[in-house]
Amino acid sequence: MRKIVYNYLGKVLIGFSILFIFPIIVALLYKESFLVFVIPQIISLILGILLNLIDAKKFTIFAKDGFKIVALSWIMISIIGALPFYLNNDASFIDALFETVSGFTTTGATIFEDVEILNKSILFWRSFTHFIGGMGVLAFVMTIIPLSKNDKSMHVLKAEMPGPTVGKLVPGIKKSLIYLYIIYITLTFIEWILLFIGGISPFDSLLISFGTAGTGGFSVLNSSIASYSVFSKYVIAIFMFLFGVNFNVYFLMLIGNIKNALKSEELKVYILIFIFSVSFICINTINLIGNISDAFMQAFFHVSSLMTSTGYSIGDINIYPTASRILILILMLISACAGSTCGGFKISRLIICVKSIGRDLKKMVHPNSVQIVTFEGRKVSEETIKNTNSFMLLYIILIIIILFIISFDGYSFETSINAVFTTFANVGLCFNISNFADFSSLSKIVLSIGMLLGRLEIFPVITLFTDLKKK
Amino acid sequence: MRKIVYNYLGKVLIGFSILFIFPIIVALLYKESFLVFVIPQIISLILGILLNLIDAKKFTIFAKDGFKIVALSWIMISIIGALPFYLNNDASFIDALFETVSGFTTTGATIFEDVEILNKSILFWRSFTHFIGGMGVLAFVMTIIPLSKNDKSMHVLKAEMPGPTVGKLVPGIKKSLIYLYIIYITLTFIEWILLFIGGISPFDSLLISFGTAGTGGFSVLNSSIASYSVFSKYVIAIFMFLFGVNFNVYFLMLIGNIKNALKSEELKVYILIFIFSVSFICINTINLIGNISDAFMQAFFHVSSLMTSTGYSIGDINIYPTASRILILILMLISACAGSTCGGFKISRLIICVKSIGRDLKKMVHPNSVQIVTFEGRKVSEETIKNTNSFMLLYIILIIIILFIISFDGYSFETSINAVFTTFANVGLCFNISNFADFSSLSKIVLSIGMLLGRLEIFPVITLFTDLKKK
Repeated sequence: MRKIVYNYLGKVLIGFSILFIFPIIVALLYKESFLVFVIPQIISLILGILLNLIDAKKFTIFAKDGFKIVALSWIMISIIGALPFYLNNDASFIDALFETVSGFTTTGATIFEDVEILNKSILFWRSFTHFIGGMGVLAFVMTIIPLSKNDKSMHVLKAEMPGPTVGKLVPGIKKSLIYLYIIYITLTFIEWILLFIGGISPFDSLLISFGTAGTGGFSVLNSSIASYSVFSKYVIAIFMFLFGVNFNVYFLMLIGNIKNALKSEELKVYILIFIFSVSFICINTINLIGNISDAFMQAFFHVSSLMTSTGYSIGDINIYPTASRILILILMLISACAGSTCGGFKISRLIICVKSIGRDLKKMVHPNSVQIVTFEGRKVSEETIKNTNSFMLLYIILIIIILFIISFDGYSFETSINAVFTTFANVGLCFNISNFADFSSLSKIVLSIGMLLGRLEIFPVITLFTDLKKK
Repeated sequence: MRKIVYNYLGKVLIGFSILFIFPIIVALLYKESFLVFVIPQIISLILGILLNLIDAKKFTIFAKDGFKIVALSWIMISIIGALPFYLNNDASFIDALFETVSGFTTTGATIFEDVEILNKSILFWRSFTHFIGGMGVLAFVMTIIPLSKNDKSMHVLKAEMPGPTVGKLVPGIKKSLIYLYIIYITLTFIEWILLFIGGISPFDSLLISFGTAGTGGFSVLNSSIASYSVFSKYVIAIFMFLFGVNFNVYFLMLIGNIKNALKSEELKVYILIFIFSVSFICINTINLIGNISDAFMQAFFHVSSLMTSTGYSIGDINIYPTASRILILILMLISACAGSTCGGFKISRLIICVKSIGRDLKKMVHPNSVQIVTFEGRKVSEETIKNTNSFMLLYIILIIIILFIISFDGYSFETSINAVFTTFANVGLCFNISNFADFSSLSKIVLSIGMLLGRLEIFPVITLFTDLKKK
C-alpha cells in the first residue's frame, strides 16, 4: 500500500470523528450515555491524526490509490461506527458491524428484532449513518478526483462512480460538491417539515427523512412506515422516488435549465419503469388487498421504496403473488438512476447494456453496417460499453457466489436469493424474514461484504485484494 | 425472406421425412398404428418438394440466411414432429408441440404424467427426437457453412454454434461431419450394448441411449432411471458425462493425437467443476440419504445428468438442501463443453467471460498495461470477447423475461425459476414438479420458445424477428 493511501485515510477519519458530535448532542438532550459515542470519536480522531502524520507530499495520487482510499475508508468507518451499538450492549460486534455496514451502504437491513427499545441517541446514529452514506461515495470521489490532474486513468474513477457527471457541469469540483449537498440537504429538510406537518414527531420525522434521503430504510418503529397517516406515506413515497433521480437533473433545474433537465433519457426510462411497475403490482394485488386505493398506495409506496433501494414498507409484501415478487426482485437489481443515492446497477447501465446487445444483434445480421450506441444524445465509447457489460456480468457472478455461501444457512431458496439481492443492491427489505438476526456469523460477514461491494460498485473493494495478491 | 431460405428449408424437410421410416418400422414390429407417422411423413415430403421447387440458383447464401434456415427448420420439424402424439390422441396439439420441441432441443421436459401407457412406437419417436436433435444443430451448421465461401460474415455462424471447431481440423466439412457422426453413433452403440448387458431390454436400452446421446432425458419409465441396477446407473452416468465432452477431444483421440486431446483447457475445467460438484453434493446430502455409497452414486449421477443438461434422475432431488439446489441451478446454466450435445451457455463461454472480467479489473488498476485473454492456448479476439459477453447478458435477460411471463401461473418462486432454467438450458428436470402438464398454454408456448432459443443459442431465432420488423 502506498503512503498516500494511509495519509488520506487519516484525513477521512479525522473528518469522520467530527460527525459523532451529532449523536452526542442527542444523547445529552435525552440524558442517555454519550460515552458510547465519545470513545469511537476519540479512536477515530487519534487514528486519523496518526495516519495523517505519514508523509505523502511527494506522491501523486492515482486511480488505484483513489479506489483503495474509498474502500479502506468505508471499512474503517464501518468498524468504528459499529462501536456505539457494541458499547451500549445492543448487539454483538458482528451484529453491530452488520448494522453499521447496512447503515453506511444505505441498505437498511437490520439485525434488531425490536428497534423500539433502542436509545434515542442510538436510533439517531443508526439513521444518521444512512444520511452520511447516501452522499458518502459522491463526496469521497469529488474530493479525490481534483487531487490528480495528470493521471489519465482517473476517468475510470469518474465513469464508475455514481453521479460524478455532475462534476462536468460546474467548473471546480468543490463548487459541484457544494451544489450537491445543497440539493441533498434541502430535499431532506423539505421532507422533514412535511412529515412533521403530517403529524410525526420532529425526532422521528428527522430520522425517517435521513432514511429516505440516503435511500436507506432504517425505521424508528418495528412496523416500518405502516402505522403513519396516508399523507405521510405518500410524502415518503414521493421523496423516495425523488431521491432516485439523478442529482444532475436537480442541478440543471437549479441553474434554470429545466428544458435540458427533463430531456434526460435515464429519467424517462425511470419514470416508464416506475409507472409500469406500480400499475402492474396494483392490478396483480388488488384482489388480495381488497380495495383499489389501498392497492394503489401500497404498490406506489413499495415500488418507490424497492426501486430506489430504500426498503421502507407499509404492508405485508409476503402476500404478493409470484409475478409481483419476481418483478420486485428485478426492480431491486436495476434500481433507479445513476448519480442518485440508490443501489443496484442503475438504469443508465441497463440502457447501455440493452442497447449494446441490440447493436450486436444487428451487426450479426448485417455484418457490414456501422452501428453506434447512444445514451443521453451522445455516442457511447466502446470502452464504456465493454466496462458496463463487464460490470453487469461481474455483478451477477458475485451475487451467485454470495448466494452459494449463504445457502448453507438453510433458508429456503427464495429467502436466500432475496437476502442476497436485498443486501447487494442495498435495499434492505426481504421477503419471508423481518430481520437478519438469525443468519450465521459467516453469512452476516459475507452479506456485509456484499453490501460494500454493491455500494462501492465493486471495483474499489477488489483493488484491495489485487494489491494483497501482488505482495 | 429470401428465396434461398425456402429452398433450403425444403431440402431439410425432405431429409426429415426420411427419418419417419424408423418409427414406422417400430410400429409395424409392435403391430401399432403406423399411420400417425406416415401422415406427417407425407406432409413433410410434399411440403419439402414444393419449397425446394422455388428456384434459388442465382443466390449466394449469407450468414443471416443460414440463421433463418436453422431457426425455421427447427420450428417446422417441431410442428410436423408433434403430429404423431396428436394424431395418436396422446396429447393436445400444444402439449404435443411442447413435447416435440422438448425432444428436438434435447431438453427432456415432458407433459406426460404417465409415459408407461404410451405406444412403443410413440415412445420410440419421442426418444428418437433426442437422437436427431443432439447432433442436429451441428449437422445443419456443417451443411450450411460450405455453401458460402465468399461471405466474410460466415465466421459469426461458426463462432456462435456449438462444435464447429471440429470443422477446422479436417479439410472438407463433409468429412468432419462424417467423423462426428461416427463418434456420436459409436458412443451411443457402446452404451446400448452395455445397458443390454446390464439387464435392460434391447428396446428400452436403445431409447435410454438415445436420451443419453442427445443429452435429452426422456425416459421409458415414470421413475426415470431409479429402478435399474447400480451397474446400469453408473453406465448411464458415465456416458452422460462423456457426451458432455467437446467432440473435438474424441476426434483428436480418433486420429491418434491423444496428448493434444487431453490438453484441452475446457476439458480440465469441466472435470474440475464436475469433481467439485459431486464431492459437494455427496457431503451435503450424506445425512439425508444415509450411506456414503448411495449418496455418492446419487451425487455422481445427478451432477452428470444436470451438468450435461440430460435430466435423467435416480432419486428424489427435492430432498436436497438449499446449498445443493443452488449449486444444481448454477450447473444447469453453465452446462458442459461447447461442441457437445449439451445445452446451457457452455464452459468455454464461462472461461472467456471470467477471464475477460479479470482482464478488465487488472486494466482498471494498471491502466497502461497490456492484457490479453487466452483460451486453449490462443489469444481470444476482442470481437469474440464482446460477442461472448453480449451473449451471456442476453441469455440472462431472456431468462428473466420468460420467468416473468410464466410467473403468472402462480407456481412458487423456486419452481418458476427452476422451470425456466431447466427449459432454457435444455435440461428438463425440475424441482417440485414431475412434469409440465399443469402449466398454462401460454407458459407452454413461451417455455417452448425458450427451449428453442437456448438450443439454437438465441441468435438464429432472433434473426427471424429482425427480418419481420424491417418489412
